[in-house]
Amino acid sequence: MEKLNELKQRLATISDLTAASSVLIWDQSTYMPLGGAAARGRQLSTLARLAHEHATDPALGRLLDDLQSYAESLPYDDDDASLLRIARREFERATRVPAGLVAAFSEHSARSYSAWTIARPANDFAAVRPHLEQTLELSRQLADCFPGYDHIADPLIDLNDYGMRAASVRALFAELRQELVPLVRAITAQPSADDSCLLQHYPAPAQIAFAEQVIRDYGYDFERGRQDIAPHPFMIRFALDDIRITTRVKVDDLSEALFSTLHESGHAMYEQGIAATHEATPLASGTSAGVHESQSRLWENQIGRSQVFWQHYYPQLQEVFPQQLGAVSLESFYRAVNKVQPSLIRTDADEVTYNLHVMIRFDLELALLEGTLAVADLPEAWRARYTSDLGVTPPDDRDGVLQDVHWFSGMIGGVFQGYTIGNLLSAQFFAAAQQALPQIGVEIASGRFATLRGWLREHIYCHGSKYTAAELITRATGGPLTIAPYMAYLREKYGKLYAL
Amino acid sequence: MEKLNELKQRLATISDLTAASSVLIWDQSTYMPLGGAAARGRQLSTLARLAHEHATDPALGRLLDDLQSYAESLPYDDDDASLLRIARREFERATRVPAGLVAAFSEHSARSYSAWTIARPANDFAAVRPHLEQTLELSRQLADCFPGYDHIADPLIDLNDYGMRAASVRALFAELRQELVPLVRAITAQPSADDSCLLQHYPAPAQIAFAEQVIRDYGYDFERGRQDIAPHPFMIRFALDDIRITTRVKVDDLSEALFSTLHESGHAMYEQGIAATHEATPLASGTSAGVHESQSRLWENQIGRSQVFWQHYYPQLQEVFPQQLGAVSLESFYRAVNKVQPSLIRTDADEVTYNLHVMIRFDLELALLEGTLAVADLPEAWRARYTSDLGVTPPDDRDGVLQDVHWFSGMIGGVFQGYTIGNLLSAQFFAAAQQALPQIGVEIASGRFATLRGWLREHIYCHGSKYTAAELITRATGGPLTIAPYMAYLREKYGKLYAL
Repeated sequence: MEKLNELKQRLATISDLTAASSVLIWDQSTYMPLGGAAARGRQLSTLARLAHEHATDPALGRLLDDLQSYAESLPYDDDDASLLRIARREFERATRVPAGLVAAFSEHSARSYSAWTIARPANDFAAVRPHLEQTLELSRQLADCFPGYDHIADPLIDLNDYGMRAASVRALFAELRQELVPLVRAITAQPSADDSCLLQHYPAPAQIAFAEQVIRDYGYDFERGRQDIAPHPFMIRFALDDIRITTRVKVDDLSEALFSTLHESGHAMYEQGIAATHEATPLASGTSAGVHESQSRLWENQIGRSQVFWQHYYPQLQEVFPQQLGAVSLESFYRAVNKVQPSLIRTDADEVTYNLHVMIRFDLELALLEGTLAVADLPEAWRARYTSDLGVTPPDDRDGVLQDVHWFSGMIGGVFQGYTIGNLLSAQFFAAAQQALPQIGVEIASGRFATLRGWLREHIYCHGSKYTAAELITRATGGPLTIAPYMAYLREKYGKLYAL
Repeated sequence: MEKLNELKQRLATISDLTAASSVLIWDQSTYMPLGGAAARGRQLSTLARLAHEHATDPALGRLLDDLQSYAESLPYDDDDASLLRIARREFERATRVPAGLVAAFSEHSARSYSAWTIARPANDFAAVRPHLEQTLELSRQLADCFPGYDHIADPLIDLNDYGMRAASVRALFAELRQELVPLVRAITAQPSADDSCLLQHYPAPAQIAFAEQVIRDYGYDFERGRQDIAPHPFMIRFALDDIRITTRVKVDDLSEALFSTLHESGHAMYEQGIAATHEATPLASGTSAGVHESQSRLWENQIGRSQVFWQHYYPQLQEVFPQQLGAVSLESFYRAVNKVQPSLIRTDADEVTYNLHVMIRFDLELALLEGTLAVADLPEAWRARYTSDLGVTPPDDRDGVLQDVHWFSGMIGGVFQGYTIGNLLSAQFFAAAQQALPQIGVEIASGRFATLRGWLREHIYCHGSKYTAAELITRATGGPLTIAPYMAYLREKYGKLYAL
C-alpha cells in the first residue's frame, strides 16, 4: 500500500505538470497578450521536459515492477489493477521516446504553429513547407521509437486510438466509403436545402447565451468549467472539476458558435463524468480520440441537429431572435441546419460529407509517411483528391491544405482517423442507449437529457481510460465498432430530409 | 561560457516553474470556476516543490562555485557579475529552507486563505485563529533557518526588503511618526473635505475604460499585459513581456477601480521596464517590496492625485460622466480625491493617515513573533491601537484584524513595512526626477509622461534586481532613504488643501 501511494504521488506530479501546461495553453488561446508568446513557448517546453523526466523516471518503473504481482492478484476491472495496467502502458510508451525527441517536437511545433498562423491567411504554402518536412521527419522518428510495426503510421495511430492500425482503419474506411458515396450522390441529385436563415446578422452575446443555456440543459456543469472565446474551439482539462471549453462566434452565421458549443460540451461532459477516484492519475481522461469524438458528435449531431431537439428549442431560439427567425418555420430551420453540400472546409462540413474530408487527410498522411508522396507535392495531391472525392476544387491552399492546424502544430499520422471513428461511434452509442432506455427520445423532445446522460456516464464517462476503446465499445454496445448504426442513422434522417 | 550558459538554463527552468505558478494563481483569481479550487491548490503545491528542488539543486551550487572567480574578475555593475551575485544570494537563501517547510507553508497557506475567505465576511476570528497560530509557528521556523539575527523578524523583513532590519525599520517609523501625527492632528482640526461626488452611481464599463485610457497614457503597454477583474487588485508577472494587472470596481465609488488601476500600473510599468537581457533570470523582478511599492504609489498618488494631473484629465472624466460630475468643479473634485480622514481600512486610507495603518501592523507582527502578544489577544490589541493611533475603533473584526489577506495567506513578519518604505520612496524618487528634469510637471499638465517614464526606466526599472534597494536609491537620488521628501510633499500639498 505504501508503494501504491508513492506511485500515486508520482503520477499526481506528472498530472499536475500536465495540468499546468494546459492552463498555460488555455491562457495562450484566450487572454494572453501578444507579447507573451515567446516566453510562453519556452515555459511550455520546460513543463513538457519536466513532465517527460518524471514520466520516465526509473524509480517509477521500479515501483510498477514491485506492484506487478499485486496488480495480477486483482480482477481486471479493479480500479487499482486498471491504474497499474494503464500506468505501465504509459510508462513503457514514454520511456521509448528519447528526451531529445520530445524537446525537438515541442520546440519545432511552436515554431511551425507560429509560421502557420501567418502562412494560412497569406495563402503561402511555401513558407510552411520546410516546417512540414521537419514535422514529417520527426513523426517518422517518433514512429521508429516503436519498432515492429506493419505500417509506419501504426504507432502514431496507436498513440491516439489505442489498438487501431493503418490496416484496420483502411478497411473500416473502405467499407464506409462504399456506402457513403452513393448516399452523397443521391442527396446532391436532389434540390439543395436553403440555409440562408442561418446567415443573417445575429449579435454575438445572444448567440453565446442561447448556446450556453442548451449545454446547461445538456448537463455541462458551469461550476466545474466555463466557456471562453478563442480562435479555435477546444476542450481542455485542468482537473476533473475544472473542464473548460472555448468557442468562436460569427455574427453572420448562427451555426458557428451554436454547434461548436454543443460539440465541445460533449467532450467536456465526458471528462466531467469521469469518476472522482481517478483524479490526477492516467485514468483521468477520455480513453481514445475516437471515443472522445463520439461524445462531442453525439451531443452536437445525434441530439443537436435532431428534429425532436428543435421541436423543443426552436421556439426558444425564435424568442431570442424574433426578427431573424420569426417567419422561418421549424421545418425550414431543421432543413437548414442539416443542409448537405460537398464543400472545401472540413470543420464546416455536414454530417454526410464530413467523413470524406477525413479520409482524404488519412490517406495523404499515410502516403507522406510511406514516402510515396513528397511534402512539395501535397497541395496538388490535396486538390486532386477534393476534386475527385467531393467534386469541389480548392481555389487556393488557404482553403485547401493549409486549413487544418493539426499537421502544422503536432505530428503527421494518427491525428485524423479519430474524427470518423467518433462519428461512427456516436451513432453506435446513441442507438445502444435508446435501445436500453426508449424514453430518451421523448425526454429530448422536452429538453430533458438526464436519462441519456445517466446511461453515458455509467457506460462511458465514469471509466475514464480504465478500458480501451475496444473494451468500452463492447461493454457498452454488446459488440465491436461497426458502421451499421451510423449508416442506418444517416439513411433514416437524410432519406426523409431529401425524400430519397 | 559553457558553464554560464548551463547556469542560465537552470535559472530559466526555475523561472519557468515560477511563471507557471503565476499563471495558475492569476487564473485562480480571475476566471477559475469554483470546482477548480481543490486541484489548483495541489497543482500549486507541486510546482512550488519542484521550483524549490531546482533552486536548491547541489549542481546549481557547484556551477556558482565554479563561476565565482569569473564573477570576481568582472566589475560590480556588469550584468554577468550581478546575475552571479544575485543567483548566489537566492541559492543560499533557498538552501537554508528545508523542502518540508516549503511544502508545509504552501499547503497551510492554501487552507488558511480558504478559511479566511469564509471567516472575514462572517466576522469570525475564532475560525482562523488556529490557522494564524500555525502561520506564526511556521514563520518562526522560517526565521530560524537564518540564525544569527538580532530580532526574529529580521530574516523575514530581509526576504522582502533586503538589507532592512527590525531595528532600522523601527527607527525610520519612529521618525516618521513624530512628524506625521501633528500633521494628521492639524488636518483633522480643519473642516472635513466633501467626497460625496465620488460616491454616486458610476457604471462599471465606463470606469474601467477611463482608467485604462489613463494608464495607456502613463505608458503601461497593453500589448505586453492586460487588466482583468479580480476580488483583490494585484500585479503579476508571467514574463517581462507579459505583466498583468487586476482591479475591482464599485459602481457607487469612483475611486476604487480608478486608483487601484493607477496603482497596479505603477507596479507593472516597473517590471515592463526591466531590461530584456534579464528575462528568465533572478534579475527579472523588482528589487524589493519597498521599491516596488514606490512605483505604484508614485503613479497612483504623486501623479494620479496631483492637481496638474487633474487639470488635464478632469474635463475628460466630466465628459465620460456628465450627469455625475458636470456640476462639480475641478477644485472640489481635487479636494475629494485627497480627503484626509482617519478610518478603519488600510486600503481605503488617504496618503496622510495610511502609514499609521502600516505601523500598527508592523508593531503587532513584531510583538507576535517576539511572543509578547498571543494570537488570541490580537483582535483586542488591534482595536486598542486603532483607538489610540487613529482615533477610530473597529466595531468588529471584519473591518479590524481580518481586513488584510497577508497574515492569512502567507507569513507573519516582513510583509507590511514595504508599504510605508514605498510611500517614502515615491516622494524621494519623484523629487529627484523633477529636480533633474524640471519639464516633468509641465508635461503632466498636458497628459504626457514620457520624460518621467524615461527617468524612471533609466534609474530604476531597467536594472530589475541588479542593485539592492539601498544601492538603487543612492544611485538614483544621490543619498539613502529619507523621510524628508515625503514629509515635504505632504506638508506642501495638504498645507494648501487644508489651509494650514
